[in-house]
Amino acid sequence: MSDSLSAPLEGIRVLDLTRVLAGPYCTMILADLGAEVVKIERPETGDDARHFGPFLPSGLSVYFAGVNRGKKSMVLDLKDEEDRETFLQLVDQADVLVENFQPGAMEAFGLSAQALRERNPRLIYTALSGFGHEGLETSRPAYDIVIQAMSGLMSITGEGLDSPMRVGTSISDILTGMFGAVSVLSSLRQRDKDGAGAMIDMAMLDCTVAVLENAINRFSITGESPVPLGTRHPAITPFQAFETADEPIVVAAGNDRLWKKLCEVLDCSELADDERFATNNARTENRDHLDSELGPRLMADTQANWLARLDAAGVPAAPIRNIEQVVNDPHLASRDMWHDMHDSQGATLRTAASPFRTDGHKPRISDHAPELGEHTQSVLEE
Amino acid sequence: MSDSLSAPLEGIRVLDLTRVLAGPYCTMILADLGAEVVKIERPETGDDARHFGPFLPSGLSVYFAGVNRGKKSMVLDLKDEEDRETFLQLVDQADVLVENFQPGAMEAFGLSAQALRERNPRLIYTALSGFGHEGLETSRPAYDIVIQAMSGLMSITGEGLDSPMRVGTSISDILTGMFGAVSVLSSLRQRDKDGAGAMIDMAMLDCTVAVLENAINRFSITGESPVPLGTRHPAITPFQAFETADEPIVVAAGNDRLWKKLCEVLDCSELADDERFATNNARTENRDHLDSELGPRLMADTQANWLARLDAAGVPAAPIRNIEQVVNDPHLASRDMWHDMHDSQGATLRTAASPFRTDGHKPRISDHAPELGEHTQSVLEE
Repeated sequence: MSDSLSAPLEGIRVLDLTRVLAGPYCTMILADLGAEVVKIERPETGDDARHFGPFLPSGLSVYFAGVNRGKKSMVLDLKDEEDRETFLQLVDQADVLVENFQPGAMEAFGLSAQALRERNPRLIYTALSGFGHEGLETSRPAYDIVIQAMSGLMSITGEGLDSPMRVGTSISDILTGMFGAVSVLSSLRQRDKDGAGAMIDMAMLDCTVAVLENAINRFSITGESPVPLGTRHPAITPFQAFETADEPIVVAAGNDRLWKKLCEVLDCSELADDERFATNNARTENRDHLDSELGPRLMADTQANWLARLDAAGVPAAPIRNIEQVVNDPHLASRDMWHDMHDSQGATLRTAASPFRTDGHKPRISDHAPELGEHTQSVLEE
Repeated sequence: MSDSLSAPLEGIRVLDLTRVLAGPYCTMILADLGAEVVKIERPETGDDARHFGPFLPSGLSVYFAGVNRGKKSMVLDLKDEEDRETFLQLVDQADVLVENFQPGAMEAFGLSAQALRERNPRLIYTALSGFGHEGLETSRPAYDIVIQAMSGLMSITGEGLDSPMRVGTSISDILTGMFGAVSVLSSLRQRDKDGAGAMIDMAMLDCTVAVLENAINRFSITGESPVPLGTRHPAITPFQAFETADEPIVVAAGNDRLWKKLCEVLDCSELADDERFATNNARTENRDHLDSELGPRLMADTQANWLARLDAAGVPAAPIRNIEQVVNDPHLASRDMWHDMHDSQGATLRTAASPFRTDGHKPRISDHAPELGEHTQSVLEE
């Protein structure tokens, strides 16, 4: 891959005022794509995430390292007049600013989007927040789990009505970072056309509601709130986990052709001809009957044997892997999906790489997360 | 919002060969941003998702409607020589092509990325697949749950080791659509610079691994696979659901300041001074002790009363809302986050709107999902 291809955002300077996860994930994507990201941190403590354990021997938080690769760190106290003046000079040269303060915080610093855009009309001001900068409840504080709870996502994840589950990754933060990156990129495109910056108001609640898939639509038609279905899919059957003689598997018979193949593998072709199971919608309606037919059959052999047979028949199926199995997957290694980072003491941390693969290459990404204030001087000197 | 601002992708033509969810979600984002998306569907059945219930009175699938707004539908049989010729003429005029077939399918049609890019070197060919187009296991079939299982996401979602859960939305599909949109936008930017198209190889497995947040990093340091924690966060405490006298709440004390405030609200300031709970890392280590202290206190009053007190103190907290409560949320209405669609019989379907908000406006999005082949003639005539 040529240098230029790997860095579509080369030449774009991002001022990054974000902390913890949603904002840092957004600016990590921009950095992966070649932007210069200058992370502005408050004195002494810096980003809260620097203090989340566990830590590398140097004291670097693995949480922080995982989402701040390739960024520069600059310490500025936005409550201090001199530092604020320095910040404004950086704004004059910036293409994009990203912040994830509670709405009102930048105004309190005297650094409102409006004031910054008056100085630099080409600035793409990107505000990521829990509930947004416009609307009824903008000032409400939010963390990922607050949004997972308020968006309805927890209510459709879990085994039953009494045990709503948090998704095991901070998905509301990450989705907001991703939608934020889409919005920054499209605003850059718009700016290429008309020269104007933008004010992006991206809310975690909006972003999470936007990925509920058919849950909202289904409620709109039936008037009933979807319930958590364990490992099942609400509209496709069978599409779920099953126990076997040892470890569980998931099976995804996404259409009638795959359903018939599954019946062949399970040696129960009579089910394929059964009216109750003839179409996906019939199978979904009669899912409990279907479970009681398929469940015992799958208990008769082991995970490995079922997976071998299902794979041979072309029925999508898989083991439920733990993180160790994922990290040791030869296919993911062949995709070059691991990215080793190094701290100042030479310790190595394995993290997930960027998923971008273009023309056979992945972005060149740094193996270094900045120490607090590491680049304060060099940015000032520029 | 001016017309131009609301449509940064105006003038970009996308050929959309995608089915079901990952691909359609990607092209929906592109359509929301102003691209012209021509969805190519096979004769008679079209996109599989057209057959997933429930249905509107016209027979339109609510699943299909939810991710295909504002697209044109054209029927072409890519196995038919004449239709293939028509398709190639469309390729000549396209900026972006998106497909989510199994790797090898386009080659079998005689429509490999290489062949199409030779015809149109500016084409951004975007392949979304389960395991990618390069690597050890590219031809393995995948649906969302296969990737949720193989990525490790299910293994960290749920209540305990024996009950891994599927995330209640098809998050692997959606993440892949979103990363795909980021990659298309950055490739368009690169093309603006050098005139060259691209081949994007986006794998659902890579995309899901890329959002596991600190699970990979944590394993790298500790050598132990993270386990599902119910509603808890692995690195922040307390940050979880609690029972109350009636309905549960979530509480997110994301830093020591919020932890102290929480103790004030719960009238247990002695815990704030307790060494075992003095820092976030100590609280995370002693989470079981902490639960047994906080749990009974929260059982002493109702959800509504606790939320009122926590809100007043500025401690992030929330109810776990079901979909009905979400759809009736006045704040989401004030954000204009609902998008009503209409079928040919005049029936209304409420769906989630786009989360993009720029300069106070949201994208203009269509209230119409196309019938199969609705635009075949009009696209041909162009």
